[in-house]
Amino acid sequence: MKEKERGILPQKIKGFRDIDSDLNQLRWNIINKAKEVYKSYGFEQLDTPILEYADTLGKYMPDKESVEEGVYSFQNPEKEPVYLKNGEEMRDENENVIMENHFLALRYDLTAPLSRFYAEKLWKEHLRGNIKDGKAPLFRRYQFGQVFRYELKLTPGRFREFWQLDFDTIGTADVSADAEVCIILADALEKIGLKRKTYIVKVNNRKILKGFLQAIGINSESEEQNILRIIDKFDKIGFENVKKELMEGRTDDSGSEIKGIGMAKDLVEKIMDFFNEFSQKNTREEVLKKLKKQFQDNKIYNEGINELEKMHFIWKNLDFSEERIIFDPSLVRGMAYYTGPIFEVESLQTYKDKRGRKRNVGSICGGGRYDDLVKNLLGIKVPATGASIGVDRLSELLTLTKQVPDKEIGSVFITVFDDELMPEYQKIARSLREKNIKTEIFYGFQRNLKKQLKYADRKNSPIAIMLGSNEFEKGIVTIKDLRMGRKMQNIKDKKIWREKVQFQVERENLIEKVLELLKF
Amino acid sequence: MKEKERGILPQKIKGFRDIDSDLNQLRWNIINKAKEVYKSYGFEQLDTPILEYADTLGKYMPDKESVEEGVYSFQNPEKEPVYLKNGEEMRDENENVIMENHFLALRYDLTAPLSRFYAEKLWKEHLRGNIKDGKAPLFRRYQFGQVFRYELKLTPGRFREFWQLDFDTIGTADVSADAEVCIILADALEKIGLKRKTYIVKVNNRKILKGFLQAIGINSESEEQNILRIIDKFDKIGFENVKKELMEGRTDDSGSEIKGIGMAKDLVEKIMDFFNEFSQKNTREEVLKKLKKQFQDNKIYNEGINELEKMHFIWKNLDFSEERIIFDPSLVRGMAYYTGPIFEVESLQTYKDKRGRKRNVGSICGGGRYDDLVKNLLGIKVPATGASIGVDRLSELLTLTKQVPDKEIGSVFITVFDDELMPEYQKIARSLREKNIKTEIFYGFQRNLKKQLKYADRKNSPIAIMLGSNEFEKGIVTIKDLRMGRKMQNIKDKKIWREKVQFQVERENLIEKVLELLKF
Repeated sequence: MKEKERGILPQKIKGFRDIDSDLNQLRWNIINKAKEVYKSYGFEQLDTPILEYADTLGKYMPDKESVEEGVYSFQNPEKEPVYLKNGEEMRDENENVIMENHFLALRYDLTAPLSRFYAEKLWKEHLRGNIKDGKAPLFRRYQFGQVFRYELKLTPGRFREFWQLDFDTIGTADVSADAEVCIILADALEKIGLKRKTYIVKVNNRKILKGFLQAIGINSESEEQNILRIIDKFDKIGFENVKKELMEGRTDDSGSEIKGIGMAKDLVEKIMDFFNEFSQKNTREEVLKKLKKQFQDNKIYNEGINELEKMHFIWKNLDFSEERIIFDPSLVRGMAYYTGPIFEVESLQTYKDKRGRKRNVGSICGGGRYDDLVKNLLGIKVPATGASIGVDRLSELLTLTKQVPDKEIGSVFITVFDDELMPEYQKIARSLREKNIKTEIFYGFQRNLKKQLKYADRKNSPIAIMLGSNEFEKGIVTIKDLRMGRKMQNIKDKKIWREKVQFQVERENLIEKVLELLKF
Repeated sequence: MKEKERGILPQKIKGFRDIDSDLNQLRWNIINKAKEVYKSYGFEQLDTPILEYADTLGKYMPDKESVEEGVYSFQNPEKEPVYLKNGEEMRDENENVIMENHFLALRYDLTAPLSRFYAEKLWKEHLRGNIKDGKAPLFRRYQFGQVFRYELKLTPGRFREFWQLDFDTIGTADVSADAEVCIILADALEKIGLKRKTYIVKVNNRKILKGFLQAIGINSESEEQNILRIIDKFDKIGFENVKKELMEGRTDDSGSEIKGIGMAKDLVEKIMDFFNEFSQKNTREEVLKKLKKQFQDNKIYNEGINELEKMHFIWKNLDFSEERIIFDPSLVRGMAYYTGPIFEVESLQTYKDKRGRKRNVGSICGGGRYDDLVKNLLGIKVPATGASIGVDRLSELLTLTKQVPDKEIGSVFITVFDDELMPEYQKIARSLREKNIKTEIFYGFQRNLKKQLKYADRKNSPIAIMLGSNEFEKGIVTIKDLRMGRKMQNIKDKKIWREKVQFQVERENLIEKVLELLKF
């Protein structure tokens, strides 16, 4: 076979996206609004690298067994020392430092890098014994940016690169901070423009889940994780299918075999009974009451309830009713690092897809308490809590439910007919910019007026300025009011058109006339 | 040897940085100011992925032979088809599609991904023959974000992850757009806060360099690249060392051998003579005049001069004198993809380093015309030009020359003494936030007042609010005016202190009093 030449196709990687100007407007509106809310609660801005040592990020991906799965990871081109637990370099028999190309990973969230940042600040102090359990300093930061997940299956609206918008408090054991997280999420979403009752903050406590499972006899960590991973699917696959996956498994819609975890029927019944109790709408107080009725001698279960009670009390005092925050004992959240209260915001809005079916976007924010994440790096307990707004998911929601801000008005557009007049075009543009009017000169190939104006239209220009050599000599300029033109598309009367849409002004009155037109 | 346990040290990767709140304030001030200027010229915002197929980014790194060198690159975990030049999948003898784990790369700039973006939009249309040379649509975008370079040697102030802030016009052959690029750079830097005459935009044309080298007998592309790579070092290593590197090589300060490229002495003399002519300050018109005196029959050389002349004419008309823009025929710029006018902004400010030596930051922006970059992906000529502000370099400059914006005033700080009062603390905080006052409640471990106030100080809080159970019962609250406290540090008079710095107010007057204090 004759060797054919390989091509370089201009393509982005599957699961990655380019974000155009409209979507950027939406994205930055979300970020800037939420940022203001985060700041108003005393969070300061931190930025960490896109790339980290894979080891420091840990193995906490949802549903993933190891950090390699689900994470983009590769070896550092640079060889570096291997370290011992005490921070010293590892050496071979000949006392040579052992060098390796360590694995690097694209961050899969903003929480693991935050823990690395916090631990890195204190690590040397800690080795010297200066930082003790429960004495870690308070740190509150917000951060936004790209995170990366190597998803094997890409469903619509899921991407391998997406933006998160996080706020976290490190060094707090007080669940008042968790109560505040839920308030901040509600405040931020409303600031971004979501109407009350179109979203709901759902709250649960991992301690309640853990305690309940202990109480019915599940004590192994891995069994607990397996069960929670399946319970997490209530919303997606429904009660009956969860039941099947806990036992013998099932075949999904696509015909794929989903292996069950082979639990005994009576245990599964207990699990289903527990969650069934909360499948209807309950007030927060009703949920607490129902939870309290059982497993009263399980310590961790009761701790979980007490924490939720304390949070409820704060919300009640601040008039955050069930309109904004509810308890949902079936809430699990994917990340394995959560240890206490967990949060999720669900959008209650629906939209119609292409086939006219009612759909919803689902979860738009998530978070929780992760008391052990820093510990794994630093060796001492540093409790922490926080949450994240899924920027792309929220953008999608706002787009699908038609809540996008108005398209920004574009630049005043200067058409180009004559190279000789370029300095003149530049002068006009500069005078307008000095009056804070965005102005663009056309540098494309076309000299054809129609094509130039088509470009101006695409960029939502309000006004086009036209100046040829004839006009230049006479000291006049033609203005086309593009906004008026769009409104008057169907008006055939040339006189009105010449009055309202396209007309000439003296060169010296040009700037003033443009300013006047832009006022409307 | 007994196996010792390997540790996970909390560290970021060498050459990567965490950006704290102060540096973020500086960074985003730069981005937001420049963004406004870019927008005022009609650029729209685009965002592209951090990760791209290595092939689409091309081999254009400064001083690098291949895309692997200098770039973080790894194989996609996903197997994908290999493509032929015509866009079809490549197949083996048995007609099976050939699959591969394609190489991915972290973007090393924002220009190569822009070219990929532009080519991707048009590629299918082009295959159908609908897009012809010189008919490519105009596209103007700005973009900011991280780029990555795997630098082997890390010098101070150089990082492997850093931010760029680009604007580009694709689909323009008109060097008026290049003239505009220089104007935009000057406008943006001044908007960010650089004073005029503290920076200079230096301009050259690759065509002049290429034409000159042709005229003295250098016709091979690779020889040209080698020579330009060395000439690029004039500023860094000086005239004599450039000369040595063009010939037999030299030993640098560190004792490293730097190989020469072995050019003949008479050729090197010609090169040195040419650049020597421009080593003194010249007006733009003087430079043009000197350039025109020689090589009048080299086409590309003269094209280069004509382009600079056209740009000069625009600047002159807009009163952009040598205060802001100069011609520098020795300017080369590292990127191999430049084909026409090139630009660099040099900071003229100096600062003193730790040892008291005068230093400068050097280049803070760069750019140029790249008429072939899109062509390599799309097959048709799509001329383009643009430039980039080096956000981190500029941040460094502003920090070293003490031009950073004032530190933002922090949140009103609510100290926490009593868990029972948490709902009350929350209410106070919420009332303040409703008046647009940033407010933070302390959730840390310490209940010690001194430690809480130390935290408030670190966060630049203007006011601390203190409320214990005694005070709560009496309906009063203690306010500490932290700003006043800092000013009056040395005042020992307790009466004045109690009047001005720390005093009590009725609970119902608290919000009003805080508002009043914040006015100063």
